[in-house]
Formats: sequence, structure tokens, C-alpha cells
Amino acid sequence: MGDKIDFAAAAALLSARDQIQIIMHKNPDGDTMGCGFALCAALRALGKQANAVCDSALPSRYKYMTDPLPTQEFAPAFFVAVDTADRGRLGAAYQDQTINICIDHHGSNSDFAQHLLCDPNAASCAELVGGVIEALGVTLNTHMADCLYTGVSTDTGCFCYANTTPESLRFAARLIEAGADHIGINNLLFQTKSRGRMELECLAIAGMKIASGGRVAFMTITQEMLRHTGVEAADIERIAALPRTIEGVEVGVTVREAKDGSYRISLRTATLDAAAICGVFGGGGHVRAGGFECTGTPEDIQSALLSEIERRLA
Amino acid sequence: MGDKIDFAAAAALLSARDQIQIIMHKNPDGDTMGCGFALCAALRALGKQANAVCDSALPSRYKYMTDPLPTQEFAPAFFVAVDTADRGRLGAAYQDQTINICIDHHGSNSDFAQHLLCDPNAASCAELVGGVIEALGVTLNTHMADCLYTGVSTDTGCFCYANTTPESLRFAARLIEAGADHIGINNLLFQTKSRGRMELECLAIAGMKIASGGRVAFMTITQEMLRHTGVEAADIERIAALPRTIEGVEVGVTVREAKDGSYRISLRTATLDAAAICGVFGGGGHVRAGGFECTGTPEDIQSALLSEIERRLA
Repeated sequence: MGDKIDFAAAAALLSARDQIQIIMHKNPDGDTMGCGFALCAALRALGKQANAVCDSALPSRYKYMTDPLPTQEFAPAFFVAVDTADRGRLGAAYQDQTINICIDHHGSNSDFAQHLLCDPNAASCAELVGGVIEALGVTLNTHMADCLYTGVSTDTGCFCYANTTPESLRFAARLIEAGADHIGINNLLFQTKSRGRMELECLAIAGMKIASGGRVAFMTITQEMLRHTGVEAADIERIAALPRTIEGVEVGVTVREAKDGSYRISLRTATLDAAAICGVFGGGGHVRAGGFECTGTPEDIQSALLSEIERRLA
Repeated sequence: MGDKIDFAAAAALLSARDQIQIIMHKNPDGDTMGCGFALCAALRALGKQANAVCDSALPSRYKYMTDPLPTQEFAPAFFVAVDTADRGRLGAAYQDQTINICIDHHGSNSDFAQHLLCDPNAASCAELVGGVIEALGVTLNTHMADCLYTGVSTDTGCFCYANTTPESLRFAARLIEAGADHIGINNLLFQTKSRGRMELECLAIAGMKIASGGRVAFMTITQEMLRHTGVEAADIERIAALPRTIEGVEVGVTVREAKDGSYRISLRTATLDAAAICGVFGGGGHVRAGGFECTGTPEDIQSALLSEIERRLA
């Protein structure tokens, strides 16, 4: 169990040390990367050696965050984890590393670092890293502002998700004033899709099956649809959110055909326990988002799943 | 030509009068309606008689704005236009009406009212109406906050469009603190679509024409497409954002057929001046979003518009 620290204490700890390694969580998202690269830039601005590292490959679309900070060669002497709720999320490479400071916003943080700065009310971890950078006395440059803006905008779905707070909005306002390219970042992350992805979504919507008087929607993505639209399987991120965006749909089901002919099922729910439903089929997940894998025909899968869903909707 | 006024002057004029009719622009969107109903509620809170009216039917999804303010019976004695750039946008019913105050944020405002409060730097007209309500000394209640939040969030695409400013974000923060149901409103306006709307978008995407090597996209919405999908003309707000969401598209054009066979054209641009392009065709708007109305065939309209766009892209 680490001691709970505030912005000033985190800044004091960081000011006293050098050769700092910032660890972002595996399968990195915009928030952990925004935190990692903004903090790294701030520490370098203070004349320190610092790197932001990750056990997974970094998505290339975030190169505006990574490019300005080429890796420095040094022996790390102080370790900071950002946006990381538990040791498992550090990835295998950093599993046994002693973490000096963890900066996080997950209510479920398992308190694995020596010092913990955690505010579950913050919509993004970037808001907390912003507070630490301010306490360090570093003025944000445009790159740091871009990084922190990426964090707060991705974790709030561009200020649209229910977690968005007045503080998130004011934080974003300050970042834009500090030079964040919110127009370019929003365009890149929220406003553009490939033509193929658009066509794939349209094909999938056209074939969607609505059940239970509009409360359940089934969407299927076949290998043939991917071939037809030229979309790679890796490029269908977040498509499972689509069925639930139809007015009135409480359970959205996405059935994705894998290359070997098996199926990956994803559930998104408004009120039902998605993990519990998926558990019946050998899967799991979160309360509002779950999944499982299976074989069979899409029709049989839908029929079995629909019985289970309707039993719980009743 | 009217005199240019600020928040205090607008508030002084409104304070001195009663029986106030607020006119929202035809084909109303969230911003004009948010302005109309927030200002109407604020004036009623001061004990005045006030109505917000429109020459078009009001979309039913905005009933949380309209329901709390049943129409009052009185002979209008003072007229305020909100979010209305020119007389034509008032609609036929109010074409010849003397407008006492116009509150607007279009750079192309034609200065048709006796008094004009116009700030083209404001992302939404709601931000300006918020300033007027504050100057009137009225404390926002949750209904007014909902209306103004609807205005700023719809005109900025939930804070994602290029027009979003630090002021828009701080305004939204204050509205949430004043009780705006941003979670419910975001869900309703940005995160759910009717099945018909989804099908309409797919039909429109399937028929989209790409020109200038992928830099320009034309999308057409016909009356037949509306009939086929069961979508009402009033329910296609923000559909004009769609063509520009295709990767690489710099100018997105939406051609909407009206019931009388004429067309409403909407432009969304990445870098070109949309208002200037639309001005060539007798319209106007903002730098990145403009529109105009015309007759003819969609093919002729596209051809004329494409020449103008390509001349400026060159």
C-alpha cells in the first residue's frame, strides 16, 4: 500500500529525481499515451532525462505525440506509471518493476505503487498529469498541450460521454489556449473514417436484425464483408458500439466471423449485465461490455443468445 | 442598417419592453431553438410575456426545450431574431416583420434588424444569448441551461468541430454546473439515431460522388429517400457533416431536395471559406460551414459548385 499524494507532493518527488521512466499501460489508448508523453516532455524541459515506454507497440496515428521525443539512453532510476489501474496492465515487460509513483483515475486502482496520486472523479488521467506539470512549474508548450488534449478528448469521447465534467471542459479550454491543435486532433481521432469502413458499417446496418420489439439488435460482420469493402480485421475498432446507437436498443450484439470460420461475439448493454450474459457462453467482460468466442452458425448463436437476453429483460 | 449593440444594451432594450416574440430561423436546429427557448424562459422569469416561434415545425426530439414553455396569448410588440443571418431565414411568415433585435453569430449577417448583437467568433449563438441572459440579471434554471447546452453542443458537434473555442468549452462547463443534463442531451443528440436515420445515411453514403481526386464529396438527400426510410425532413439535422468525415475529403457538399423540388445546399470545409463559396450562389454562413438555396437539377448544381470549389482548391 502506497501513501496517497497530491500534485505538489508528486512534483516534489519528481523534482528530486532524474533518469525517470514513465510506463504507459499495455494496449495503449490516447489517455495513457497523452499522460506519458506530456509528463516526459515536462521532465525533459526541466533538464532531466526521461522516457515514456510501453509493453505494446504504439499506434502510428499518435505519432504527433511520440515523434518530438526520441528515446534517450540512460539507466532508469525512478519509475512512474500513468493511467494504470493494476500491475497486470503494465504488461509482462514491467510486471516485476517497483513503481515509485502511480498517477491514475481508476476507482479500481489496486494501489501497487510506493506513492499513489489517484482521483476517480477525473474523467481522464491527463487532467491529473496536467496538475502535476503545473506543480512542477513547467509551462505547457504546444506538444505537451497536444498530448494532454488527446488524453482528455479520447477518454471523454470528445466530451460526449457521461464521465465528462466541468473540469474536463475547462482543462481542454486551457490546453487550446496553450496551443493544442484541437482541430487537427479532433479531425484525426473523431471525425474521419475510411470510405471502406463507412461502406462496411452500411452493409452491417443493412443486415442488422432487430428483436424483442426493438430492444435487441444483432449485427454481423462476415469475412466476405471485409473482403468486399477492403477493410482489415484490425481496422474495425469500436464497431461493436454501433448496434446500441439505434434508438431504443438496450442490448447490442455484434457477431464477427474470424478467418477460421469461428465467431467473436461482443455485447453492449444499457442496463443488463453484459459480463454475466457472456459468462453463460464461456466469456466475460465488464458490466456494460462483454464478449465470448464460439463456433456454429450465426443463426444458432443469435437464437441461443436471444433466449438468454430475453430471459433477463423479462 | 441597425446599430451594433452589446450584452448590456440588448438587456436594457429587452428590459424596457414586453409582449416579446422571439423568431427562430426556419428549418430550426439545436442552436436557434436553444437560443429561442432559453431567452423566452428568461424573459418569462422577469414576468414578461414571451413566445419563441418558427416558420417551420419544431423537431419533436427537442420537446425537453419546448414542453416547459406553452405558448402564451398576446399581441407581439417587440421582435427578436436569434441565430438568423438574413431575412430569408426568418421564413415566409415573418418575411416582412420589422425585427427590433437580432442576436446572431454568422459573419455573413446581413444587418436587417434595428439593433444587431453579432459575434462571428462565437461558435454558437447560445453563447451570446447566455451573455444577454446574464446581463438581464436572470439566474439560469436547469431548463435554460438545457436549452443553452443544446445550442452550444449542437453547433460545435459536441465540441468536436473546428469552430469550438475555449469560450465554448467554459460556457458548457458553467451550464453543466447550472444543472444542464449534458449526459441525457448528449445521449439523445449525439449517441443515438433512429433506424430510419441510419438507413438514410447508408443510402446517402452509397450514392455519394467523390470528385477532385478525393478532395470533394457530394451527397444528395432526395424526398424519395426520406419517404423510403420514413425520416422526416426536420429530423436530418447535422447530416451535412457526413461527407467531410471521409478520410481525405476537404469539401463536403450536401444537396437536400425540399418538398417543392428546390434544393438546400450545405458546405463543410477543411480549409476553404465556405461562406465565401456559398456567397457566390446567394447564400452565406460561417468560414467552415455555409449554405444556400437554389433550383435546377442536382447535376447542374454539383457542376457549378464543383467549378467554384476547384478554382479555390487550385
